Amino acid sequence: MENQALTVVEYVVSRLAALGIDRVFGVPGDYSFPFDDAIEECPELEWIVCANELNAAYAADGYARLRGAAILTSTYGVGELSALNGMMGSKATRLPVFHIVGVPSLRIQKRKLITHHSLGDGVYGNFAAISAASACVSAHLTPETAIAEMERVIREALRLSAPAYITVSEDLARMPVIGTPIKGIALSNVKRNASTCQELDAALACVLERLHAAKTPVALPTQIVARYGLCEQLGAFLTRSRIPFALTPMDKGLLSEDHPSYIGLYNGDSSYPIGVRTIVESADLILDIGGLIFEDLNTGLWSDQINPERLITLGEDFVTVGDKVFTSVALSDILNGLIASAPVFGGLFETPPKTLQPLVGEGGDPLSANTFYPRLQRMLRAGDTLVAETGTCMLHMAKLRLPDGVGYQSQTLWGSIGWATPAAMGVAMADPAKRTILVTGDGSHQLTANEIGVMGRYAIKPVIFVLNNGLYGIEDVLSQVGHIYDDLAPWDYHKIPAAMGCKGWFAVRVATVAELERAIEAAQDWVGACYIEVMIPPGESQPLPMNIVDHLYKTGTPTS
Amino acid sequence: MENQALTVVEYVVSRLAALGIDRVFGVPGDYSFPFDDAIEECPELEWIVCANELNAAYAADGYARLRGAAILTSTYGVGELSALNGMMGSKATRLPVFHIVGVPSLRIQKRKLITHHSLGDGVYGNFAAISAASACVSAHLTPETAIAEMERVIREALRLSAPAYITVSEDLARMPVIGTPIKGIALSNVKRNASTCQELDAALACVLERLHAAKTPVALPTQIVARYGLCEQLGAFLTRSRIPFALTPMDKGLLSEDHPSYIGLYNGDSSYPIGVRTIVESADLILDIGGLIFEDLNTGLWSDQINPERLITLGEDFVTVGDKVFTSVALSDILNGLIASAPVFGGLFETPPKTLQPLVGEGGDPLSANTFYPRLQRMLRAGDTLVAETGTCMLHMAKLRLPDGVGYQSQTLWGSIGWATPAAMGVAMADPAKRTILVTGDGSHQLTANEIGVMGRYAIKPVIFVLNNGLYGIEDVLSQVGHIYDDLAPWDYHKIPAAMGCKGWFAVRVATVAELERAIEAAQDWVGACYIEVMIPPGESQPLPMNIVDHLYKTGTPTS
Repeated sequence: MENQALTVVEYVVSRLAALGIDRVFGVPGDYSFPFDDAIEECPELEWIVCANELNAAYAADGYARLRGAAILTSTYGVGELSALNGMMGSKATRLPVFHIVGVPSLRIQKRKLITHHSLGDGVYGNFAAISAASACVSAHLTPETAIAEMERVIREALRLSAPAYITVSEDLARMPVIGTPIKGIALSNVKRNASTCQELDAALACVLERLHAAKTPVALPTQIVARYGLCEQLGAFLTRSRIPFALTPMDKGLLSEDHPSYIGLYNGDSSYPIGVRTIVESADLILDIGGLIFEDLNTGLWSDQINPERLITLGEDFVTVGDKVFTSVALSDILNGLIASAPVFGGLFETPPKTLQPLVGEGGDPLSANTFYPRLQRMLRAGDTLVAETGTCMLHMAKLRLPDGVGYQSQTLWGSIGWATPAAMGVAMADPAKRTILVTGDGSHQLTANEIGVMGRYAIKPVIFVLNNGLYGIEDVLSQVGHIYDDLAPWDYHKIPAAMGCKGWFAVRVATVAELERAIEAAQDWVGACYIEVMIPPGESQPLPMNIVDHLYKTGTPTS
Repeated sequence: MENQALTVVEYVVSRLAALGIDRVFGVPGDYSFPFDDAIEECPELEWIVCANELNAAYAADGYARLRGAAILTSTYGVGELSALNGMMGSKATRLPVFHIVGVPSLRIQKRKLITHHSLGDGVYGNFAAISAASACVSAHLTPETAIAEMERVIREALRLSAPAYITVSEDLARMPVIGTPIKGIALSNVKRNASTCQELDAALACVLERLHAAKTPVALPTQIVARYGLCEQLGAFLTRSRIPFALTPMDKGLLSEDHPSYIGLYNGDSSYPIGVRTIVESADLILDIGGLIFEDLNTGLWSDQINPERLITLGEDFVTVGDKVFTSVALSDILNGLIASAPVFGGLFETPPKTLQPLVGEGGDPLSANTFYPRLQRMLRAGDTLVAETGTCMLHMAKLRLPDGVGYQSQTLWGSIGWATPAAMGVAMADPAKRTILVTGDGSHQLTANEIGVMGRYAIKPVIFVLNNGLYGIEDVLSQVGHIYDDLAPWDYHKIPAAMGCKGWFAVRVATVAELERAIEAAQDWVGACYIEVMIPPGESQPLPMNIVDHLYKTGTPTS
């Protein structure tokens, strides 16, 4: 063993930092102090102390979407369980978030002592399986196992693109690792999946055969491509093959909507423009790149009509063509094969006109969905990332055509309201030189608004729109209008940043078109953070781009 | 089946309301709308829409402490997982919180559709075991099973005094229950445990034999007595037997500290007054009534020295005397036996003088622990409940002698920071005619301060002290002073109520003794809610009533 070997926690945080992670989101706490100290002392890492653990998990989720991975830390029991919903969302969204947790020392456990943050039953394994359920891999480290286990954990989290859960007992945490530390390489250089030659060749031949036979193919690429760092390859393939492509709500933001082959949003009978539906569903071959998720909000409430016989799926480590399945085929390898050998299409479809939404209303007109979103659309510029909270606002934003270079993040599958506010912080911290624009509803914002103070503390500069209609808008629609439980506490949202100690924020409430336009002007200068409370009378958030009655029927109101 | 039979969800909420519960804490959400509607329509219940699910769970926890049980509602996946830490705290604290959750309809599941709030894998059983781990009993209801299952769930939750987890699919939720509904009785009339005669007789004889042989017995009653609604019996036994008793930090508030037999706080070498330690540890018999938990913060960091041979434990359904164990002995039955037959002691110990803490500082003096807590102590009056957040403030408050009729709630075992703010709301709603006084640290408050808006919405009138020292005080001590991760975002706390829409609140920042005294005067009038930000310079929260170095050693710093 070398002199001054790293301790277990020092090794863990430096090994993770080597992936290219530069911040840790979390809440410090006893049992985790060794981790907390190691993070503070690691020169590559900045400690981001969040308002609570769920917020920290959401922030890590946002960060991982742009940086490919993230670190979350919390303490035993109370902390890790609070983070669970956020971690589970990262699992649903396929994000490698490394959750590091300190647990009570073995000295305590061996002496059979009862300690706080426990059920008082002297059992110290009550929570490990629960947290592990939100991960794809987990490890309890010791000085002997830390080096090998970290390689296994990182490999699996990256192979599966999903969270990892790592614990160490407080007394072992500060002991030196035994063995030779591994330096690690940046995430972008890690080979995530490998192919078996025979399977790859067979799969590629099968896909090419179908492509050569196709006349009107369409591609539907998914966020999985981004998770595995393959957007450049995907772009090369689409540009070369000239196959028209659409994106689903869940996958919006993956590629530029200015791409010459982009045809619009595919979302079953809520596709936008609606002609996209016909193009996709009448295609003689649909190339699903990454693995579509046929979730209700991603398919116009299961109104998709995709003929499975015409569907080819290129998963991260498998390929399906009709009823043929090829395993051990890495997405990166088959994309390379397609770039080299796919036939060239194009010119068969007209792409829809790339117009902005019409600009209605002026001056003292009250605000509404119709007046807000077109103005939001016009303020977007290359480099921005738009973070869309779950709710009516997400449904509206899914239809906004984004200028080239504008990113888009939503949580369409997991759909945990409250996610967007801390996630926007994580997105902003992933690249502080770029502008992050958060659009959230008031109901969602109340769940996690305490993170605004953290944004102020770390001096990031988000542009935040809080749409204030006084209720849980989407729930008010889904539950059929008029329930008292959809009403909200009447916050004065624009006072929140000052109350939470944010210095130099531009915070304002706007109720008319002219006021909104003035606030957007300030946000366009972007000299500091902007927090804009947008008053939208409840009825003005509609109409929703979905068939609600149909949804209610399918989700189970029995006979209405 | 009768006409207009109750639906499953109507039956569940009315059956739970019959226990005497009058409020439901939660967040509405799809899949749970049938529950949400049934709660709204149940005349016995008020819907309390909380800022988020964890807050709702904490509020239910606070409510259950005073009312004996509570109802929490959230939605599938995202909601229930967010509530998990709060539910687990209720499990540690032994509170019957009924967590009701709507899950996706069987129509969706049978059609193998993928829906939001899932992992996208078509699996709908991913979260049930996780939520069930925070309960002592769980049930998935159908129209056929709802009536019988609710009896089982209620019986077990009350027998074990611990949370229950109840789910129903959205399509089954609105179907009529099959069978004859059961009306139910108030919680106070429910027999929680029963005794086997033979065991009860043997246990009672054994305990009485030891009591008759004892010369210097001491009792240590615990919160379990309150959980099972036996405080009156306990009081009768202690008054009649004249056995001196102490309370631990975890059990503070169980009985009046004005009781003639009360000797003070037992907490190992942190007992207060310290003489209590000698009295307890030199007693020739220690009667543990309820089941002591020898947790670190409840034993002066495991400095307790109680001779197990002198210890008798009366558990909720068992008795241990030395190495003898009697099972199937209900606490209520053995207490009745002791009231009837226990010998009478008394006069052997002098109880410590019941003085208030000395009143130091005046006028423009800056605030400190020494100037704050004596003034807090003097404002307490019969009917108040003091809610103590985990942290340095809890350690200080454990030592405050409480006037007769003042309740006290803390989360000494689970110790999840952030608990106290929503829990205080639940406590206040359990009896809105009485005053609830919350004392919390700034670090803890930031985790859950969004619940302040909910307090305003429902017009409760808490008196809130937020101790602002700019950092996680207790962590700063435990982790050894000076870590950047113990610093907090610099909120202007007293601006929070207005920003969150609280109308008519008295909100103020105080930095001197005179300012504090004026604010307390306003709180004594108690015409409305009070929110008092108390500026305490960091160093002035000390000294801590514990041996920190010892704690660090025991929790695992290996050789320092």
